[in-house]
Amino acid sequence: MRQSDPQILEPVAGNGLLHRRLFLTGSAALAGAGLTLLSARPVGAAPPEVPAWMKIPGAGMSPYGVRSKHEEHVVRTVGSTPGTIGTGASRTPLEHLEGIITPGALHFERHHNGIPDIDPAEHRLLIHGLVDRPLMFDLEALSRYPLVSRIQFLECSGNSGANNAPEPPQQSAGGIHGLVSCSEWTGVPLGVLLDEAGVGRDARWIVAEGADAAAMSRSVPISKALDDSIVAMYQNGEHLRPGNGYPMRLFLPGWEGNACVKWLRRIQVTAEPAMTKDETSKYSDLRPDGTALLFTFPMGVKSVITSPSGGLAMQGPGLYQISGIAWSGVGRIRRVEVSADGGESWAKAALSEPVLSKALVRFRLPWRWNGGPAVLQSRAIDESGAVQPTRAALLAERGAAFRYHYHAIQSWEVSAEGSVRNVYA
Amino acid sequence: MRQSDPQILEPVAGNGLLHRRLFLTGSAALAGAGLTLLSARPVGAAPPEVPAWMKIPGAGMSPYGVRSKHEEHVVRTVGSTPGTIGTGASRTPLEHLEGIITPGALHFERHHNGIPDIDPAEHRLLIHGLVDRPLMFDLEALSRYPLVSRIQFLECSGNSGANNAPEPPQQSAGGIHGLVSCSEWTGVPLGVLLDEAGVGRDARWIVAEGADAAAMSRSVPISKALDDSIVAMYQNGEHLRPGNGYPMRLFLPGWEGNACVKWLRRIQVTAEPAMTKDETSKYSDLRPDGTALLFTFPMGVKSVITSPSGGLAMQGPGLYQISGIAWSGVGRIRRVEVSADGGESWAKAALSEPVLSKALVRFRLPWRWNGGPAVLQSRAIDESGAVQPTRAALLAERGAAFRYHYHAIQSWEVSAEGSVRNVYA
Repeated sequence: MRQSDPQILEPVAGNGLLHRRLFLTGSAALAGAGLTLLSARPVGAAPPEVPAWMKIPGAGMSPYGVRSKHEEHVVRTVGSTPGTIGTGASRTPLEHLEGIITPGALHFERHHNGIPDIDPAEHRLLIHGLVDRPLMFDLEALSRYPLVSRIQFLECSGNSGANNAPEPPQQSAGGIHGLVSCSEWTGVPLGVLLDEAGVGRDARWIVAEGADAAAMSRSVPISKALDDSIVAMYQNGEHLRPGNGYPMRLFLPGWEGNACVKWLRRIQVTAEPAMTKDETSKYSDLRPDGTALLFTFPMGVKSVITSPSGGLAMQGPGLYQISGIAWSGVGRIRRVEVSADGGESWAKAALSEPVLSKALVRFRLPWRWNGGPAVLQSRAIDESGAVQPTRAALLAERGAAFRYHYHAIQSWEVSAEGSVRNVYA
Repeated sequence: MRQSDPQILEPVAGNGLLHRRLFLTGSAALAGAGLTLLSARPVGAAPPEVPAWMKIPGAGMSPYGVRSKHEEHVVRTVGSTPGTIGTGASRTPLEHLEGIITPGALHFERHHNGIPDIDPAEHRLLIHGLVDRPLMFDLEALSRYPLVSRIQFLECSGNSGANNAPEPPQQSAGGIHGLVSCSEWTGVPLGVLLDEAGVGRDARWIVAEGADAAAMSRSVPISKALDDSIVAMYQNGEHLRPGNGYPMRLFLPGWEGNACVKWLRRIQVTAEPAMTKDETSKYSDLRPDGTALLFTFPMGVKSVITSPSGGLAMQGPGLYQISGIAWSGVGRIRRVEVSADGGESWAKAALSEPVLSKALVRFRLPWRWNGGPAVLQSRAIDESGAVQPTRAALLAERGAAFRYHYHAIQSWEVSAEGSVRNVYA
């Protein structure tokens, strides 16, 4: 029916990677080349048997829907600090998701003393410090302000840190990298609120405090507060979930999740950072020379293949689509490259539109797996030209003691038996 | 802190509409003009009192999250045909949502005999008819095929039909217009599957059949099937919800929802449309001359203001942000205009990025309500140049008997008391 270039079947990089446009042309060329994509079963032309569920009326409608009982195994990985209830993290099951939007129920969470049970009618946000007019906002007042919406990722700066261990952890893509998610966030530009309070001449920082039992507090440069930061109230259309800061949180596009203070109750405008416990004992990195990195806000350029990925299994040799996500805290992803031979050769992946600034982007590439061993990798390049580093390069730069901002290339080893595991390659 | 043009406070259209860039400049200009945006309360500079929920550890993490108990009133409007359980529709509560993404639990549904309880391991999709090789797909086979992802709206062709009644129904924005939602849809291009089956020379249509008790079946031109149509398996990252076709549905971007057959089990390639009950007794429109409109697939250019909207209440004179959604079945929205004087004068609204083809777009415009009566309207123009019609123009063209594809301008009347109601203006 449609024409395509037979050359599109030629590998574009080692170990069977094919051109990213292959799937866009349809499979006519494949059939012509005696190659089947494809795993469908030829059958007779008669209509299929009528299944049992077509013979009885189905279930009725509901005010608030639920997912299929057959999908209830798709859950977050939950890990708490021993001896605590609400200190720890839950991770998005990246290997079960497609596209770029993370459903609210599967968005990652990281808490320092649990999820507070906030009455939205009683919640207040105070803006004070070096301002002309300290202001108090309740939810109704804040809802009168102008809203903006953006689709953007959120990532915990501790994400992927498990790959800093001497031996590669045998976990899923989500188990290792699932402290990243992507939503449409809607909120009030923080700059509008600060302008209304009247920012003083000496203001250089804000200190944001959450209304959780940890009073999680972070200092943020006022330049970021006046740039693209918002006080978010909606996530994927609905109000924020409790675990993501209901009824309001700070959202700093592209910056580490910890600084996007949840359950936001106070913004103090200051001349200096507050050096809170949350930015000195945590969320800072010891360097090899004994100094510490503080206030390392933007998340580095990064990508991970989610299919195939750790713990999944191949279904025999043939054509596959490699699929994954890429993102960068400084802006748009310009390019993602994929390797099937452990980084010896690379092919350019297709990026699914829309490619948005500081959002996840879905990349995909066709791969003809010949049934032999392979090491799959992805490498993201952002619009600033920054290139996702190898693990060896990142560790050489940062030393052994760092915990945050791990963004090195992930390697998945595919065995001849079709199992997939995490390796350091 | 930042400069803005005082002229930005001048109305750009009647009854208080202000320039769309007003809120982007911050409120400094407003304060300078002695005008407060704003509803925050000036207070002392001391930190606020510590609320009760900060004094005890919060709740722990969960594998699959739920929304706040304080938001449980945000639900779909459910209506069933009398005497049936699963025949009817549930509508998205548009007036409670922001941005463009509809959470899965609040996506509209329209069923003809309920939601079938499908075992995904037993579900099959057959492609047959005028093809070289009839093919049968189970879910595992289909999952090997290449995926594409797109953020696009879905709308029932019966949406907004309540406004065809002689008297304007006093319902919310969602109650009237809530048979439209927007998701990120991921699936296999239907063209790839059809190419693999080998489409015959005489093929002009496909007939798609669902695995529900109504065996809902629609004929679709093969040109659309080979264009941008997909067999969707994921919605907002996760697998389809049961009410939206789990485990797979047809998705025809921009075309009426009824043709996007849910629980898809069969695609028959044909030379002619099948004239099923679902495209003759339903989903066709009697015209004034006695003939009927059949196969009217693309959804017309449309918009609705969601805030303020029917049943909501103003909180006193002052500055507001008008917010709404616009969409078109033929492509991108080029422009949305807003009127506060019942269509006498119009101002251009700001469109929130990304403005995607066949997706909802969020529009917003500042409005200084003086406390007097007002009639709010929005009018969308798409990239083809099509302009959303007035109600009078639409009825003059279509006559009194039509039920589907109502896409006229919605008018909300704001009373001096601040109540908002549906009017025909």
